[in-house]
Amino acid sequence: MPPKTGNRCFSLLVPFVLVSACFIICSEMWFSKVNSRTRLQTVEVLLKQKQETLLASYRSYREQLRDKDNEIKEISNRYKLAEARILNLSLNLETRRNSSKDLPVIYAITPTHARSQQKAELTRLSQTFLHMSSFHWIVVEDSRKKSRLVANFLRNCGVSYTHLCALTPSDSQLNIGGLVRKSSKGVEQRNLGISWLRKNVDLKTQPGVVYFADDDNTYDLRIFAEMRRTRKISVWPVGLVGDQRYAAPIVKNGKVTGWRVSYDPIRKFATDMAGFAMNLHVFFEHPDLQFSHYTRPGSQESDIISKTNITLNDLEPLADNCTKVLVWHTRALPPKLTKEDKMKVKFDHGSNFIVEV
Amino acid sequence: MPPKTGNRCFSLLVPFVLVSACFIICSEMWFSKVNSRTRLQTVEVLLKQKQETLLASYRSYREQLRDKDNEIKEISNRYKLAEARILNLSLNLETRRNSSKDLPVIYAITPTHARSQQKAELTRLSQTFLHMSSFHWIVVEDSRKKSRLVANFLRNCGVSYTHLCALTPSDSQLNIGGLVRKSSKGVEQRNLGISWLRKNVDLKTQPGVVYFADDDNTYDLRIFAEMRRTRKISVWPVGLVGDQRYAAPIVKNGKVTGWRVSYDPIRKFATDMAGFAMNLHVFFEHPDLQFSHYTRPGSQESDIISKTNITLNDLEPLADNCTKVLVWHTRALPPKLTKEDKMKVKFDHGSNFIVEV
Repeated sequence: MPPKTGNRCFSLLVPFVLVSACFIICSEMWFSKVNSRTRLQTVEVLLKQKQETLLASYRSYREQLRDKDNEIKEISNRYKLAEARILNLSLNLETRRNSSKDLPVIYAITPTHARSQQKAELTRLSQTFLHMSSFHWIVVEDSRKKSRLVANFLRNCGVSYTHLCALTPSDSQLNIGGLVRKSSKGVEQRNLGISWLRKNVDLKTQPGVVYFADDDNTYDLRIFAEMRRTRKISVWPVGLVGDQRYAAPIVKNGKVTGWRVSYDPIRKFATDMAGFAMNLHVFFEHPDLQFSHYTRPGSQESDIISKTNITLNDLEPLADNCTKVLVWHTRALPPKLTKEDKMKVKFDHGSNFIVEV
Repeated sequence: MPPKTGNRCFSLLVPFVLVSACFIICSEMWFSKVNSRTRLQTVEVLLKQKQETLLASYRSYREQLRDKDNEIKEISNRYKLAEARILNLSLNLETRRNSSKDLPVIYAITPTHARSQQKAELTRLSQTFLHMSSFHWIVVEDSRKKSRLVANFLRNCGVSYTHLCALTPSDSQLNIGGLVRKSSKGVEQRNLGISWLRKNVDLKTQPGVVYFADDDNTYDLRIFAEMRRTRKISVWPVGLVGDQRYAAPIVKNGKVTGWRVSYDPIRKFATDMAGFAMNLHVFFEHPDLQFSHYTRPGSQESDIISKTNITLNDLEPLADNCTKVLVWHTRALPPKLTKEDKMKVKFDHGSNFIVEV
């Protein structure tokens, strides 16, 4: 029976071994399966978290984009409205301007030079001119090139304008051939204005009147309404000139007979630059008519009027037969600006020169 | 032997069944493991794809956002330019309109005293004011009675006005009870203007803004458009004041934090008379608010603002956060009129005093 016993033992051992092996394999696989499931779960959870973070920022970006889109839409609308308003306003202005197209244009030639109060002076002068229709302002800087200050100012002032520049030569530059001459202020600038008119205005289609309007004087609006009727050369009183209350043409029976002036009364036409206007056609009839450095100082006005061969009798007295002062030769007190250095100490630098004054 | 055979059969069947079962379980588990691994891989791939898609759109959104920001910036700039143009055009047009009754009225209180250039100064000032609608000019002469010159001038200037007068007392008149005081110019006149407003304006039906506009300063029209929005007290820079190019409030983050001035910088509100405006309601809320001769010289502005209990923080900075000069403290050079005697000799009398200058 031993073999039988051995056989029996064997027949029991085999399944035992097999079952054990199976059990070990199974359990190993079971653990591996459980393990992989947890790993899968962990990965899934991690990925889900990552996905959610991404989704959140994705959504926030999408919302931000929607906000920006709305912002763009809103500002675009406002811009469109603004543009429509600009168009409307421009048209409105244009119609008001066109309604006076039949009027002769007043061409005011204004020499100007850089100084502390330049912008202030130009500002109040422009506010006077802004009241006028059929008006063109020729601003000529006494400089080699146009300044940014004046260019910016003119762009925003609302008056129809032309911006030019011409430098006044020094005394030595004028002293040619031993003829000693002191250069007169305003000669180059006014002459450039005159030649601009000759080149750019067609007298046949647009009549006009030329006035030399310095940038520091004060002008009553009525003088412009009056000077617009000038046929050849008109004259009127000027206040606060030549250390007098006013200087004026003497008028008898509607005709100019002389000049009530204290300064250089022997001048033939003893008026101030602010006291006369000339019809534009005078400058076309006399193509060489202009101011000159060779004129006796203080006689620029008298000289240019004389060159037109006009007589006292032909002058047109305005301002109620020269009895009203509608123009004042005002002068600004130049500001001292002595505290700029003190400011330099206090604020480490003086004025902020980015700030235009 | 049958039981033996049966026993043998059984002893063979048991391991076979067990092995089979194990095999089935194992294979099932094997497949499940493989399955779960592939699922894991698929999920990982899918999630990775999804993540990449999200990242891509996230990045594209971020780029789009940057583009939109640039777009907003660009269109905002265009909008700002358009707004500036509208302001300019509106001002231009406002001049040609007579009524815009919904606007708060600007009440400009202007003290004035007799001098050679008074009419000239009032003339150019009136031309500035003539551009405005909803504007009322309170002109207060420093005199015992109203002058014919100012009365005539105001009647013809075209601006809505009230003509008053109040004489500045002499130093001795103010020296009561041993308190020596130097009288300040403008105190009586501005106070009379303020009390006229309290008596004659109904705040409920007509909102307003009060501005102390001296007759020799220069005002850009834009400052009036700006000050009209004053809720309590607004401030801005003034050019050519205190021997500086300009004096200005210091503004940080849209709030006034101090004053860029050289003259008496310890003043709490170191502004010039031309540098601030107050809503009319302030004068009704403080019924005793007025200027005083007992104020330290040069501190009238600071004192009247202090009396309203306003803080620096509450001031409304105008003129582009106080970076633009829209008002200039211009001064006229008083004409000498030394030639009047000479004229007396020449024309038997000086100027014709019937002629108003």
